[in-house]
Amino acid sequence: MTSPPPGRPPSGPRKPFRPFSKPGRPFKGRGGRVLREAAPDYETGTVLLYGWHTVAEALNNPKRRIRTLLATENAAKRLDEEGIAHSAEIVPVRDIDRRLAATPDAVHQGLFAEADALDAPSLDRLPAKGVVLLLDQITDPHNVGAIVRSAAAFGVKAIVTTNRHSPEATGVLAKSASGGLEHVPFVTVQNLARAMADLKARAFLIVGLDSEGEADLDQVAVTEPVALVLGAEGKGLRQLTRENCDVLARIDMPGAIRSLNVSNATALALYAVTTRLGLRR
Amino acid sequence: MTSPPPGRPPSGPRKPFRPFSKPGRPFKGRGGRVLREAAPDYETGTVLLYGWHTVAEALNNPKRRIRTLLATENAAKRLDEEGIAHSAEIVPVRDIDRRLAATPDAVHQGLFAEADALDAPSLDRLPAKGVVLLLDQITDPHNVGAIVRSAAAFGVKAIVTTNRHSPEATGVLAKSASGGLEHVPFVTVQNLARAMADLKARAFLIVGLDSEGEADLDQVAVTEPVALVLGAEGKGLRQLTRENCDVLARIDMPGAIRSLNVSNATALALYAVTTRLGLRR
Repeated sequence: MTSPPPGRPPSGPRKPFRPFSKPGRPFKGRGGRVLREAAPDYETGTVLLYGWHTVAEALNNPKRRIRTLLATENAAKRLDEEGIAHSAEIVPVRDIDRRLAATPDAVHQGLFAEADALDAPSLDRLPAKGVVLLLDQITDPHNVGAIVRSAAAFGVKAIVTTNRHSPEATGVLAKSASGGLEHVPFVTVQNLARAMADLKARAFLIVGLDSEGEADLDQVAVTEPVALVLGAEGKGLRQLTRENCDVLARIDMPGAIRSLNVSNATALALYAVTTRLGLRR
Repeated sequence: MTSPPPGRPPSGPRKPFRPFSKPGRPFKGRGGRVLREAAPDYETGTVLLYGWHTVAEALNNPKRRIRTLLATENAAKRLDEEGIAHSAEIVPVRDIDRRLAATPDAVHQGLFAEADALDAPSLDRLPAKGVVLLLDQITDPHNVGAIVRSAAAFGVKAIVTTNRHSPEATGVLAKSASGGLEHVPFVTVQNLARAMADLKARAFLIVGLDSEGEADLDQVAVTEPVALVLGAEGKGLRQLTRENCDVLARIDMPGAIRSLNVSNATALALYAVTTRLGLRR
């Protein structure tokens, strides 16, 4: 049950198993409400990883310490065929189902891992180049996971989130991120406004996405390095967050529905900005 | 339990309640596997609608026949405050929870409706202008719902899906679409290749999104009317679908992860194409 992959012996005492929530606060499974209320515990916690892309990328990430790796015979064979080093314990599929009992719809594809969360760098160690994302109280793990995936695709340097309100690596988030979690560092800050000031001091242009923005994103003079600030669905950016942006950009849309899913809005903003900055090729 | 809103009396015999699956094939709740296997029944079925945006947009759509509308006292008050005509039966929240027992994580916000599916127009009645989407075996209801939402935001004229493999209006899809389902017609076809030929004959440019595409989407000479063809995650476009496209476009991405969530890819393609065609303002 706890055979670590070769070359990655666990060191130090084993941390308690806390997939998402604080001790005493049960992880109640998929979907919004309970997950949103749970206090994130990114830096010190354990994450659940399941699904092909999610686990395969984790195995390929030398910085990811995997504590437990379970695989069905087929999944282990596929790892072998793809030349991915592992020392999975081969188990029947029901053993993995049982480990994911809290998320019964989890599509694990025969792979399940318990791993340490990745170290989160501090804000001042971020290189002042490219694109970073700031998430203003975006909490839904499916949305954050999808944002992480797009961020990894567009070479985003970091995702900055507030400590108390944003979820971090969890099984749901990691699965939605489809391996992206291995490639984009999460920087957890106490105070988003202060983080924005710090980034400004380091020459970042701070662009907030806001339906009431002064200009369409296409008309904003984007320069590098740039921080894109995204607000939660329905709520948008908080007043203070808005005030701390250098510019507020909207995305004009001709249709009957005036708001996008936040991960879709993020993907679109990343596409527009990386295209404009010549970072896409 | 079955009080219709004013001005929309139900006519004809009441259809059996089939939220997604065929009779005898139980709707097993949220998440991929079972939903994907169920045969869609869009044209003749009943859909479940829940959540504020989803139900409010349905109530505002004169073409949507609502059979049952349940609301908590607070939700009914909110409908009144927003001037949305309704004759909801006021119920305690647990009654709505019970109606959504198959999707226990459903965030219904005190609103639940059973409604007839909207009529689907036939392909030859589509106006030959603007942008349509063709979905090649995209089945996950969360993804299709998110695509519908973006399609509604970007003024897409129709979404064309194959009869057997694409899911249609369901509670999950409708909730993810956040009201978008009221604004974008679903055209269900038996054969996507034939639909593509029909659209070509009507002057549509057929652009397939494909990671092996010959040019970046930005370099493709897009003309109106245009049909964007999207494939399922992992699988991409089927060979025959690919062959029937006028052009295959890729989206260059600089990062470590080379594929986007399909709804994110769709949003981004819609943004790029509507911007290029001057349809975004």
